Amino acid sequence: MDEVLSKVHALETAVKCRPELRKTLNDLNLNEAYREVVDLPGVEVAAAIEQVMIAIADTILRNEGFGYSLPSRGNTDQVYVEQLDRIVLKEKHTFTTFHNTSSVRKVAILTRVMQLIHGVLTRGIHVTKRDLFYTDVKLFRDQKDSDSVLDDISCLLGCTRNSLHVVASEKGVVVGKLTYTEDGDEIDCTKMGIGGKAIPSNIDEVDCFRSVAKFVLLVEKDAAFMRLAEDRFYNRFPCIIITAKGQPDVATRLFLSKLKRDLRIPVLALVDADPYGLKIISVYMQGSKNMAFDSANLTTPDIKWLGVRPSDLDKFKIPEQCRLEMSQKDIETGHHMLNEDFIQQNPKWVREVKMMLASKTKAEIQALSSYGFQYLSEVYLPLKLQEGDWI
Amino acid sequence: MDEVLSKVHALETAVKCRPELRKTLNDLNLNEAYREVVDLPGVEVAAAIEQVMIAIADTILRNEGFGYSLPSRGNTDQVYVEQLDRIVLKEKHTFTTFHNTSSVRKVAILTRVMQLIHGVLTRGIHVTKRDLFYTDVKLFRDQKDSDSVLDDISCLLGCTRNSLHVVASEKGVVVGKLTYTEDGDEIDCTKMGIGGKAIPSNIDEVDCFRSVAKFVLLVEKDAAFMRLAEDRFYNRFPCIIITAKGQPDVATRLFLSKLKRDLRIPVLALVDADPYGLKIISVYMQGSKNMAFDSANLTTPDIKWLGVRPSDLDKFKIPEQCRLEMSQKDIETGHHMLNEDFIQQNPKWVREVKMMLASKTKAEIQALSSYGFQYLSEVYLPLKLQEGDWI
Repeated sequence: MDEVLSKVHALETAVKCRPELRKTLNDLNLNEAYREVVDLPGVEVAAAIEQVMIAIADTILRNEGFGYSLPSRGNTDQVYVEQLDRIVLKEKHTFTTFHNTSSVRKVAILTRVMQLIHGVLTRGIHVTKRDLFYTDVKLFRDQKDSDSVLDDISCLLGCTRNSLHVVASEKGVVVGKLTYTEDGDEIDCTKMGIGGKAIPSNIDEVDCFRSVAKFVLLVEKDAAFMRLAEDRFYNRFPCIIITAKGQPDVATRLFLSKLKRDLRIPVLALVDADPYGLKIISVYMQGSKNMAFDSANLTTPDIKWLGVRPSDLDKFKIPEQCRLEMSQKDIETGHHMLNEDFIQQNPKWVREVKMMLASKTKAEIQALSSYGFQYLSEVYLPLKLQEGDWI
Repeated sequence: MDEVLSKVHALETAVKCRPELRKTLNDLNLNEAYREVVDLPGVEVAAAIEQVMIAIADTILRNEGFGYSLPSRGNTDQVYVEQLDRIVLKEKHTFTTFHNTSSVRKVAILTRVMQLIHGVLTRGIHVTKRDLFYTDVKLFRDQKDSDSVLDDISCLLGCTRNSLHVVASEKGVVVGKLTYTEDGDEIDCTKMGIGGKAIPSNIDEVDCFRSVAKFVLLVEKDAAFMRLAEDRFYNRFPCIIITAKGQPDVATRLFLSKLKRDLRIPVLALVDADPYGLKIISVYMQGSKNMAFDSANLTTPDIKWLGVRPSDLDKFKIPEQCRLEMSQKDIETGHHMLNEDFIQQNPKWVREVKMMLASKTKAEIQALSSYGFQYLSEVYLPLKLQEGDWI
């Protein structure tokens, strides 16, 4: 087995030995120009809210009015920084004042939500955006209004959304060579049957990752996850298998990012050979633009594209009937992806995407079933891992 | 606590003591007239396939042609049997022959899928419909064609879809006072943190339910599930908490049904006070019409409607702003629900639905947050359970 895994082992060592896995704005001397948020413990966030409020009380007492100096989060404020390989926010502020009919409502909502969050933090619980909205429907009127200030508050306090204890719904699952604690419970992901452990939405209760895994296998689809979990693939190839069942949710992205940072093992992606599969990798790697300020926590740089790659279709002789014709929309998305920075930086990725667009052909992970239901876990993945066939 | 739970305890005793929790067609002497399928072990299903094939070989050798006598599954064949409180299939067959241009393709697909399923069963693995499709795209052409014969095969062999080891994707989660085995792994649902245990899609690997729970709390929404899991509600009120995060999937319905049958404890539903919430209860209770033949395994009769009920809005003084106006579509769905058999049978349910339609008002579970984020777990549910306020 050691020989079979030699390529994986080499990659793991490379990832582990890289001196600085993840650069910060500070490392690049850019923290004057750009802004990012960090994970903070609940008590610190609560203290930060108190500081903001004390400062505001001061300004009011000095007769300088009531308002917040908020970081700008417009489209033009979101920039991709190549050295970081992620999107961050320009350091730019606008003053939002209570003494103005156009912003009075926003300031009131912002203050009320901060008060609610302070309560949540001091009680040590977690709530959803919908919960927040319902605590003061009279003021918020529309959930959009209470939602939108959350990102402002994150930026203002310099902490992640997650640190505010406002969480999104979960859909990810995990199995494999991993143990961790969740809200004090010891979770052993080798003993989670076939269904796996649901990834929790409150990642700050997740701690103490311990693992003998050589890599994380990031799977796009539930069906492939099920195949690998049922075949206990992680017992033959020590790994951690994760899926968000399609488009990744925030909780799964946070979980993966924390996993990579703490364990420092490679992440290999198994997605459909179509533009949508690539898009899923990109969301894990880069995050979405409107969460630019939180990209350091939400993103996992340096994900390797294991498969199913356009070049695999011929390499593994996927039958013609299992290949699907790309729709016009697929082709457009493909061209759009081709121009994305994260693809352009990797010539091998560019080659694959060009191959896909030239052939106008796509394929799903399940196309491998044409050789038998267990071809994925017994032939395809073992071969890929042994050959070190990722890019 | 014993006193607090006296009503729950009485309900539990009633459920446990009921002589025949679930009637079968056999009990009612109806198994000549109607058809249902049962859960069968893989080896038995494989043997049944072999029997079908041997019988067909016989007919071919006797020069009587190649074909299947398939149970009819049309709309008019699906009937609600009041004594069973579920929808079943009339016992009626049509002969589908290979010697007919209109059915040659169907017979070929049916035979091929049975062959594939036989392989899956003998290897003891589980696959998805998509996997099945990809094993012979040339023959199946469209996934609809390989999917549609699965129900025919279930009916033909007299076993559930699940017994064919063809599973659907999962989205349910469970926490609480429950331990069980999943594919040999011991799962303790009191030690699943806040995220909970993902309910597996292959329910036949789930076994040995053990529980001290007094009831199952069936929750419509992820957010409410999270609240209860984080507050470890099941430690104060011994229960099992389940959610399918909205519209219930097959795996969660099977899990709940098995839980109820094995543990014989009451099931209390916590859903939004709108027609959609009622629809969710109805899917758990009655199943959908096109799976009529499998209703005994998929459904959980006698679910109690705990809340949030239309009458709760005034009882718990939910503020006006947290109540939402019903849309035209909501009202139509409400009227449609009112005529459903399962509502009509319960005068208290009829009263609630009529109240909803008269007020044209709906509310979400989260509306309870207007009294504080933990109102649900600390006030609303304890009060409901103590008063025995379910219908």
